[in-house]
Amino acid sequence: MNRYKIIIEYDGRPFVGWQRQDNGLGVQQVVEAAVFDFCGEQATVFCAGRTDAGVHAMGQVAHFDLSTDHSEDTVRDAINFHLVRSQYPVQVLQAQKVDEEFHARFSANERQYLYRILNRRPRPALEAGRVWWVPVPLDADAMNDAANVLLGNHDFTSFRATNCQAKTAVKTLDELTVERKAEEIHIKVRARSFLHHQVRNMAGSLKMVGEGRWSKSDLQDVLQARDRARGGQTAPAEGLYLVRVGY
Amino acid sequence: MNRYKIIIEYDGRPFVGWQRQDNGLGVQQVVEAAVFDFCGEQATVFCAGRTDAGVHAMGQVAHFDLSTDHSEDTVRDAINFHLVRSQYPVQVLQAQKVDEEFHARFSANERQYLYRILNRRPRPALEAGRVWWVPVPLDADAMNDAANVLLGNHDFTSFRATNCQAKTAVKTLDELTVERKAEEIHIKVRARSFLHHQVRNMAGSLKMVGEGRWSKSDLQDVLQARDRARGGQTAPAEGLYLVRVGY
Repeated sequence: MNRYKIIIEYDGRPFVGWQRQDNGLGVQQVVEAAVFDFCGEQATVFCAGRTDAGVHAMGQVAHFDLSTDHSEDTVRDAINFHLVRSQYPVQVLQAQKVDEEFHARFSANERQYLYRILNRRPRPALEAGRVWWVPVPLDADAMNDAANVLLGNHDFTSFRATNCQAKTAVKTLDELTVERKAEEIHIKVRARSFLHHQVRNMAGSLKMVGEGRWSKSDLQDVLQARDRARGGQTAPAEGLYLVRVGY
Repeated sequence: MNRYKIIIEYDGRPFVGWQRQDNGLGVQQVVEAAVFDFCGEQATVFCAGRTDAGVHAMGQVAHFDLSTDHSEDTVRDAINFHLVRSQYPVQVLQAQKVDEEFHARFSANERQYLYRILNRRPRPALEAGRVWWVPVPLDADAMNDAANVLLGNHDFTSFRATNCQAKTAVKTLDELTVERKAEEIHIKVRARSFLHHQVRNMAGSLKMVGEGRWSKSDLQDVLQARDRARGGQTAPAEGLYLVRVGY
């Protein structure tokens, strides 16, 4: 048995998410089909973080097992050849042989996401489907300052999807910064793991701060309320990127 | 008569270029339709630089005349409203009232372009259609150094499309820099005006330098040959962005 770790980039727009659904195609399906086309084996591809519909990845990580042995370059190039033929926007950036201890999801000890807001009055033309368009001017410095109340170990129930299946809402947030880059606002976030919709729900709440509708202490109150109904809106999937998974 | 200057952003992929063609839609058509939908006037929209099929713009400039008077905000927002309804990736970033002396094309004294190369073995997934994919490793420093031979006043026949209609091939290049940004290589170029395909032909020649197939003095020879057949390939449209037009 040969286990391969791959790092994957994809544009989330054509997909219902990482996992296949009754209503459409998952990234997983497209990668599994490319693996099959390459070597004729029906491998299950396990990922580090199951992204939702429309969410993008610059560095998703996955693993799969093959009975056959191939060089790392062959695995990357052959899967990419078939991905390009599929015409879906998915590419393998790196392939690596790993031992059987490695599991893309369970071995991961760090996930890093980027949330992009386009903060200007005109809608996105070049970046349509790849940013959250917010026409009201946002104060990125206020957002960055308020973000500090979410850092560290907390019960994140106020930022957790109601259908989230995690046993506990207690998580440790290692990084959360907000920075303006010309017309965009970039929210960078890093933790061992996240609750379902946690990044998008935090982005929606930080937007409330950026608009001046919430103060830093309002955000603190929302966190302490442990009540999803008190949190901000779920920011749309299109602004979210899985950047890196650490092991 | 009221003349309006607009700055436009667009994704070039769905278009045959700025101008309409027998075989498809031009950006101009889409903007003119939005102007008509907004105020019922059939205005001709003149641009600063007629981009080719697939070329993008972050800051194209255009002007048009209306018999009716509107505030600058109304012009921007109303055209954008109809552009969004058209579902084409075009937006007006800014609208400004200008006097009748102003002409988007003839008043311009500076054009700035960006050419993006994705320089890595896997194809683009997130940036498909928006970069030139070059899998062979390129030496950006060598490209940047060689670029200096093209700076200044020269006969650019070697970098001019054979169907270029300019009276002379003599142009003055004010800026040409090549810089690596992670997996991308960015070529920035600025001049009063350019010949047809000049930026893409220079990008194709700089790629020869980046691959190590041409030295700086080879590029010098190509320039001095004044022969298009000696120049590098025409880099694809998808990597080219009209960034700014100066007046």
